Amino acid sequence: MNKPIEWKITAQDGEARTGILRTRRSEIETPVFMPVGTQGTVKGVRFEWLEEEMDAQIILGNTYHLFLRPGVEIIRSLGGLHKFSTWNRSLLTDSGGFQVFSLTDLRKLTEEGVEFRSHINGDKKFLSPGISMEIQAALGSEIVMVFDECAPGKAGIDQTRKSLEMTARWAERSKNRFNELQETGMDSGFMSESSAVAGGANKLSGRQALFGIVQGAGHIELRRESLEKTVEIGFDGYAIGGLSVGEEKSVMYEVLEFLAPKMPQNAPRYLMGVGTPEDLVEAVTRGVDMFDCVLPTRNGRTGSAFTSVGKINIRNAKFAADSEPLDVNCSCSVCRRFSKAYIRHLYQAKEMLAAILISHHNLAFFLDTMKKVRQSIKLGNFGEFRRDFLNKISEGESEDKSTDV
Amino acid sequence: MNKPIEWKITAQDGEARTGILRTRRSEIETPVFMPVGTQGTVKGVRFEWLEEEMDAQIILGNTYHLFLRPGVEIIRSLGGLHKFSTWNRSLLTDSGGFQVFSLTDLRKLTEEGVEFRSHINGDKKFLSPGISMEIQAALGSEIVMVFDECAPGKAGIDQTRKSLEMTARWAERSKNRFNELQETGMDSGFMSESSAVAGGANKLSGRQALFGIVQGAGHIELRRESLEKTVEIGFDGYAIGGLSVGEEKSVMYEVLEFLAPKMPQNAPRYLMGVGTPEDLVEAVTRGVDMFDCVLPTRNGRTGSAFTSVGKINIRNAKFAADSEPLDVNCSCSVCRRFSKAYIRHLYQAKEMLAAILISHHNLAFFLDTMKKVRQSIKLGNFGEFRRDFLNKISEGESEDKSTDV
Repeated sequence: MNKPIEWKITAQDGEARTGILRTRRSEIETPVFMPVGTQGTVKGVRFEWLEEEMDAQIILGNTYHLFLRPGVEIIRSLGGLHKFSTWNRSLLTDSGGFQVFSLTDLRKLTEEGVEFRSHINGDKKFLSPGISMEIQAALGSEIVMVFDECAPGKAGIDQTRKSLEMTARWAERSKNRFNELQETGMDSGFMSESSAVAGGANKLSGRQALFGIVQGAGHIELRRESLEKTVEIGFDGYAIGGLSVGEEKSVMYEVLEFLAPKMPQNAPRYLMGVGTPEDLVEAVTRGVDMFDCVLPTRNGRTGSAFTSVGKINIRNAKFAADSEPLDVNCSCSVCRRFSKAYIRHLYQAKEMLAAILISHHNLAFFLDTMKKVRQSIKLGNFGEFRRDFLNKISEGESEDKSTDV
Repeated sequence: MNKPIEWKITAQDGEARTGILRTRRSEIETPVFMPVGTQGTVKGVRFEWLEEEMDAQIILGNTYHLFLRPGVEIIRSLGGLHKFSTWNRSLLTDSGGFQVFSLTDLRKLTEEGVEFRSHINGDKKFLSPGISMEIQAALGSEIVMVFDECAPGKAGIDQTRKSLEMTARWAERSKNRFNELQETGMDSGFMSESSAVAGGANKLSGRQALFGIVQGAGHIELRRESLEKTVEIGFDGYAIGGLSVGEEKSVMYEVLEFLAPKMPQNAPRYLMGVGTPEDLVEAVTRGVDMFDCVLPTRNGRTGSAFTSVGKINIRNAKFAADSEPLDVNCSCSVCRRFSKAYIRHLYQAKEMLAAILISHHNLAFFLDTMKKVRQSIKLGNFGEFRRDFLNKISEGESEDKSTDV
């Protein structure tokens, strides 16, 4: 039977690799950064810019948020998240697990699932592996994530082991329910083989793909165990969960260094919820292919811009008459046109255009960084690119500090 | 000597007329609706959309707001409001008078000018005809407005007469200072004759134009007096101030019906701060050529959309699963793509994209309405257009009420 996605390595430089991920709706070059569209919109940035200027081929949608509002009935009645939101390229949906464990007051965690209260109106709600798969089928995303439990970053070994064992049982239940839903045509994003995007020798099934999630916090041995269990169940791709949740940076890099090379070579590796541009480059170095993070848009709303010489905050008074763009090395439509002085004025004047422009630039910067990462891997000089990229950022940021008097 | 602007009537249908207004920076077909860019940005709508999709040729900037923040020094040091904001088409700046009288705690009104406290930080500030002209020269707008006093809509005859006499003396002082500033090259938007936009037989001076303002509230006789005084001083165009400030609609239409036809035939007539789509059509009927209003963007932020069948509020639960666009008769990029259900979801979820999309549609609807107005005047069937346009809105709105149970 044809597969729902196809992923092929196109170049390798150390552990870093480039590839082409083909889904029924788009062709994605990896390593890829996926903008986060929590509630069916990438905050403050119209799809037109993501499509035409940034050429984003995949974005995220959040099961937890969309489950609570507008609700599955509405989205299903309007034909799924693609039709509802008008985003016609690939979608990856998370399982809702992470949000339930981080955003809400937990009511009760059982083997069956999680009962919790909505952060919007306090309503009692229930999520389980099966329900998460049903919601994600109604959303019709190209890539579905298993429903997992995410232990706190600093959880002890016993708590973490218990958690990853539960995650493994939930992964199996997720997969079973997922398969049933695919068989019974509950996936609103289904495309017949003939209408799925062309390119590549093999036809795709037109169905959703399912990714497993490796947990285990900062405990190397537990990570190995979780990986084994997850691979044994078998998925279309493998994600690393439970990093960047409060632990030290060095722990994240250690786990990645240990884990990524042991993950299946011929499936995409997805590091969930990470991170800064530096994190992305460090994770690619260790063999990761896919990323998502709210930082570009969240920081955009607080006036913080990522640049090739480090992070700057537009509120800084030194930008009041600065006629240069956010990043002189960036060629996005914001940097081609607007000055720091103008954007700072918008921010000070509480104009939403400030958040719109900085979020746009930040996303463009993240996507452009991944493009440069891919180019350098293909050219075999990723190591040099990485050194250079990280140096410029750390030099810029230390210089910035010394002039902030 | 060449003139700063040129305006020619191209067609007439009753009192309604179309024309071409040529400034040093763009060619504007009238009747025209000018989007309001209070703080150097049209709230929530990137210039790219105004330029490319809506083809807006002129927007407003607010002297009062820009004077307080970022301040004249910053804008002058960055080359004026065009360079600062990157809006390279025409700008009209108001004088700051209206805001001083409506937004702030007045400290003291004297013959010299107005002392007031900033609404941002309480700083003591002073505006006068001369200072307003200096600020508008630093901003470098194509069209400068005289500094006027705007009496409350329901002011009695004595108060209104006193006010319009002051306005006339201030208009004269405005003009004198304006001329000095033009002579001494203080206009940051100056363009040499050769670089000003082409088209039309006559060369333009490359300087700013100055519009006078007719006051007089709802008192017909005082309107006539104010008009005479203003025309006697002599301006490049004439505005009607002090309407839509709390008086009855019928009063506004009466004043317009009386006043507009008596205004100079060969200069553009600008109705300040008005109004709804219906108001615009009614004012064109009475001979008005130019409009500005914050309604499209202000209503956009509260979920209210203007459509060809009347105003709707996207919060209404009946739109929860409505797959139709805001206005089925609108061809803007928002209506071509997004459903009411999706935009309602964005609004309910407090996503800024809701305000972005509704503001965009509203502006597109206003500009498109003016385009249809111009077409029908040229074709000689403006009366029919008007009847039809107003009927559809009032029918739509009464139907809407009857289904709101």
